[in-house]
Amino acid sequence: MVVGLVETAVPAAKSTVSSAVKKPTTLSSDPIINVARGDPTIYEPYWKKMGDRCKVVIAGDEFMSYFCNAMNLCWFLLPELDNAIRTLHRVVGNAMVDDDKFIVVGNGSTQLFHALLYTLSSPDMPEPINVVAAFLLVQSYPEETKFLRSELYKWAGDANCYDRDEPYIEVVTSPNNPDGSIRGTVENREGGKAIHDGAYYWPQYAPITSKADHDAMLFTFSKATGHAGTRIGWAIVKDKVIAAKMVKFIEVSSIGVSREAQLRAAKVLGLIADDCRNPDVKGENFFEYGRRLMSERWGKLREVGMKSNGVFSLPKYPRDYCKFTGEYTDSNPAFAWLKSKEGLNCENLLRDESKIISRGGPSFGVDSTYTRVSMLSRDVEFELLLERLAAVKGTVNGN
Amino acid sequence: MVVGLVETAVPAAKSTVSSAVKKPTTLSSDPIINVARGDPTIYEPYWKKMGDRCKVVIAGDEFMSYFCNAMNLCWFLLPELDNAIRTLHRVVGNAMVDDDKFIVVGNGSTQLFHALLYTLSSPDMPEPINVVAAFLLVQSYPEETKFLRSELYKWAGDANCYDRDEPYIEVVTSPNNPDGSIRGTVENREGGKAIHDGAYYWPQYAPITSKADHDAMLFTFSKATGHAGTRIGWAIVKDKVIAAKMVKFIEVSSIGVSREAQLRAAKVLGLIADDCRNPDVKGENFFEYGRRLMSERWGKLREVGMKSNGVFSLPKYPRDYCKFTGEYTDSNPAFAWLKSKEGLNCENLLRDESKIISRGGPSFGVDSTYTRVSMLSRDVEFELLLERLAAVKGTVNGN
Repeated sequence: MVVGLVETAVPAAKSTVSSAVKKPTTLSSDPIINVARGDPTIYEPYWKKMGDRCKVVIAGDEFMSYFCNAMNLCWFLLPELDNAIRTLHRVVGNAMVDDDKFIVVGNGSTQLFHALLYTLSSPDMPEPINVVAAFLLVQSYPEETKFLRSELYKWAGDANCYDRDEPYIEVVTSPNNPDGSIRGTVENREGGKAIHDGAYYWPQYAPITSKADHDAMLFTFSKATGHAGTRIGWAIVKDKVIAAKMVKFIEVSSIGVSREAQLRAAKVLGLIADDCRNPDVKGENFFEYGRRLMSERWGKLREVGMKSNGVFSLPKYPRDYCKFTGEYTDSNPAFAWLKSKEGLNCENLLRDESKIISRGGPSFGVDSTYTRVSMLSRDVEFELLLERLAAVKGTVNGN
Repeated sequence: MVVGLVETAVPAAKSTVSSAVKKPTTLSSDPIINVARGDPTIYEPYWKKMGDRCKVVIAGDEFMSYFCNAMNLCWFLLPELDNAIRTLHRVVGNAMVDDDKFIVVGNGSTQLFHALLYTLSSPDMPEPINVVAAFLLVQSYPEETKFLRSELYKWAGDANCYDRDEPYIEVVTSPNNPDGSIRGTVENREGGKAIHDGAYYWPQYAPITSKADHDAMLFTFSKATGHAGTRIGWAIVKDKVIAAKMVKFIEVSSIGVSREAQLRAAKVLGLIADDCRNPDVKGENFFEYGRRLMSERWGKLREVGMKSNGVFSLPKYPRDYCKFTGEYTDSNPAFAWLKSKEGLNCENLLRDESKIISRGGPSFGVDSTYTRVSMLSRDVEFELLLERLAAVKGTVNGN
């Protein structure tokens, strides 16, 4: 979730390739390709194919009350969504969702990240609590943490360098963005709290090796299924007091979460779970489809990388046994973490030679030989990206 | 918008009268009536009647991108909603929406209130900016202002008593909640900024006397049409820099606003505007319906008040010329502001004699002879409320 946030700040119209785009003739007339952000439009064809199976119809007099389920701790959570979330996690096996755990829904997992920062800090402390994440960090965490100018918490940088004897909150994203690595907390000291972001812990991106079972875990509809315009995220929380404080935060911030979006998320997540459980389903279930697509894209990208004469290279990920598919599978991260030859500025190189907008290493706390490229764009845009990358010569430095 | 926020904190299931409720026999077995909050379920029958005219259908592959309209300053605002908002304000005549004004959509106007507090304060100031509102104040403003523990702004109380020579933000709600009064800013000093909340400035609640034309105005779908489960609010903003900063706030808080909710709001607001402009519409347009309903309810409540031998009384509002209806009309506020005889605690009186949960004067900065009662509940609950109020004797003090 939280991922993809700040990079979406830049309006994309001028930089997005439309599906009607023609093969470029000269570079100066080519459209810019913006793969700096992670707009997950890759899955559109799948959902188009699902047709009426995931259509939602809402009558004019539905959902008029503020309340979804007044008996539930999270009183604005649609029971159908609660049920769909728990069912899908059970089917996939990527998170523990025992009945005694609390589901808190938010306007995207971004709002839940803010709710957790608020909840895990304390108004009684003399100083704001430190928030850390291990570099490479998700680029948006520092901005999100600093943005609201809360007196309760403050950004304190790289968890690997954190050595203060003070309470802290560690943010852990696994698989990580941008580099796809599998992670745990770096710090494990007394007084430490953690926020685990599982945005990319789904079978199309990574082998599912175990059920995550942390105190507070975040997931987002946008990266799981590609529905980024539907602002739905959820937290799975062990402690009732923490869940209740998060609910209060979301109440005071936005009086809950739109029912229409929740209904749609419930429908889509429910369909995926049904198909995964039903071996007679025609065609592929969503995760099979997503994994095949991501795997094909990564194959093509690696091929381009190998032919680039070392102009750029890509990280390698160990294969691991995926309990969901029952096979050894590769990681196919949602972002590619490109590294150019020493002495080159990878972001500038792509921009100046190929009109590719990416997000350079310095945004993630590393040097400028790195840059991040989204793997989740539409087919036409991804094919054009490959074509442009294949043509990069590394002759323009652009420093 | 902002209104109705904090009172919704209390889960309502146990206290809400269901439509299947039977006429009470003994008080001890009666259900509790909760009219402390303003859940606007009153309009459900109207929207049921509209049937397919305001049904929305959303296919599985719609709204997958983060972006609604990348060329627009508010890139997550659905163009159909932008258009419906401007059209409706033009038809009703309650706010200036010239083309050079900016519409910013939020997850309820609550989120926009936070966005405005953030936007109108400044990180360069040595001290947090003061936030004031004239008492009677909207009960939720102090909590909302204090809740996030921002270092940028702080709650500074009653605008009428504000005499510091420091920058400030004044929050003005007109018509006001809870007392329905028409208001302007109390303070008009240099360095002062204002947030105008027009949640109740619609024809069913108040005569539309002029087009509001302030720097920053808030409106909410929930109070305008009764769709409280759809978390949609909008701000009308004159200054581009302020609008852009609000957009950034909503981006960092929740990466925009769910498209499904926006589509639904566009459909409903569009239908209302169409019907208002079309004199051949069968039956009543939404505002005629709402005004008739509110007027009937107020008539019945006043009758009960008059027969109460002074146990409780209600404010009187001047009639005014409503440019929308072309008639002199009464105010029919969304909340009734009950005052009991001196020496009585009105909130406790209603609770102990009649099992009516209301919100007492002290929540709004005044004495306990006052209490606030929602006028927007379902018919069955409102009729029961009248019945109970008619039976109040004023013999239980409950202090």
